[in-house]
Amino acid sequence: MGRGCFISVEGIEGAGKSTQLKFIQQLLESAGKAVTVTREPGGTPLGEQIRTLLLTPRLEGMSAETELLLMFAARVEHVRQVISPALARGRWVLCDRFTGASYAYQGGGRGLPLARIEALEHWALNHLRPDLTLLLDVPVGVGLQRAASRRQQPDRFEQEQAGFFECVRKAYLSLAKERVDEFRLIDASMPLPEVQEAIQQVIMAFIEANQGA
Amino acid sequence: MGRGCFISVEGIEGAGKSTQLKFIQQLLESAGKAVTVTREPGGTPLGEQIRTLLLTPRLEGMSAETELLLMFAARVEHVRQVISPALARGRWVLCDRFTGASYAYQGGGRGLPLARIEALEHWALNHLRPDLTLLLDVPVGVGLQRAASRRQQPDRFEQEQAGFFECVRKAYLSLAKERVDEFRLIDASMPLPEVQEAIQQVIMAFIEANQGA
Repeated sequence: MGRGCFISVEGIEGAGKSTQLKFIQQLLESAGKAVTVTREPGGTPLGEQIRTLLLTPRLEGMSAETELLLMFAARVEHVRQVISPALARGRWVLCDRFTGASYAYQGGGRGLPLARIEALEHWALNHLRPDLTLLLDVPVGVGLQRAASRRQQPDRFEQEQAGFFECVRKAYLSLAKERVDEFRLIDASMPLPEVQEAIQQVIMAFIEANQGA
Repeated sequence: MGRGCFISVEGIEGAGKSTQLKFIQQLLESAGKAVTVTREPGGTPLGEQIRTLLLTPRLEGMSAETELLLMFAARVEHVRQVISPALARGRWVLCDRFTGASYAYQGGGRGLPLARIEALEHWALNHLRPDLTLLLDVPVGVGLQRAASRRQQPDRFEQEQAGFFECVRKAYLSLAKERVDEFRLIDASMPLPEVQEAIQQVIMAFIEANQGA
């Protein structure tokens, strides 16, 4: 058995990632793939602790550089302990966010130059990127309303203003435009059956194109 | 008033950093300097939390890259929140370890190539380095014996074997050889009065050379 494929799902708060991750997992498993589902930042004991640090509202003053270094610290462990070993065993890895989120949140949202993010990505991961990234795109208003209806206590990222998420969304969209081989854009503001039909088409085409994996 | 000076104190476990930091602080204050004493990793609320993560024995499997990213995350916050503002106000900053420790521990100790550390240092700090670093050098056996007599529960770094600390010490010594403008080597295995006489000479010469600060 060859190396598995690495799929990430990206999107702003309330884009429907959790629901669609489960749906994608089912699609892959129905196609006979062994799937490892994981999430960023996190996925390892250290990563989960870093996740807690990052999402704690009282560490508000943290610089974008610090945020990015913490994200990559978690990510390096995540790749070493979870993602790479699973791929090497022929499993498919389905990840709730990956480096794309750093470009969107610390780049678009916090204004860190993309070249600086790319330099750190290269340092930490030697440009390991997902084979496929699904970007679930929704207007910011829709996403925030969905997220708000779900949570009682917003975390540090969710406390950001709508303007912040507009920048994050814009950064995601330009990433999708720039990396056409990796990204597939899904209009996640459509009714659920249509969103899932679009996702299914993308996933089936990807499986078809990666028969050996 | 001009910018203050930035002094770090480096050395392996048991080299006597805590004692000598207090002594150096007294020397500087006697010379009329306002001194901010701080430590790495730590010095900020986030940094102290990262310090806890780094020193927790159960996260043993952490890679050298992850360790280094966490160190620099703490360091960036430390520089932004503590060191740079203090220096800008004309205070002298006395720091218990700085980037030198990354070269010694993650480089010498864990075998990370020095060029990789330098790349991350440049990314995170744009090569901000102390104006003066005192390296308190002791043979590993002496240092470990001193450290052992002091602690009940060794932390993750203190649990390392003597061979690890030999590599750390060697890396510190080559750093001192390479960066002759920044480093002053103190033989900390001498009796305390002689160690402090050597430190006093270095500090007084440094104050003399930095009259404007």
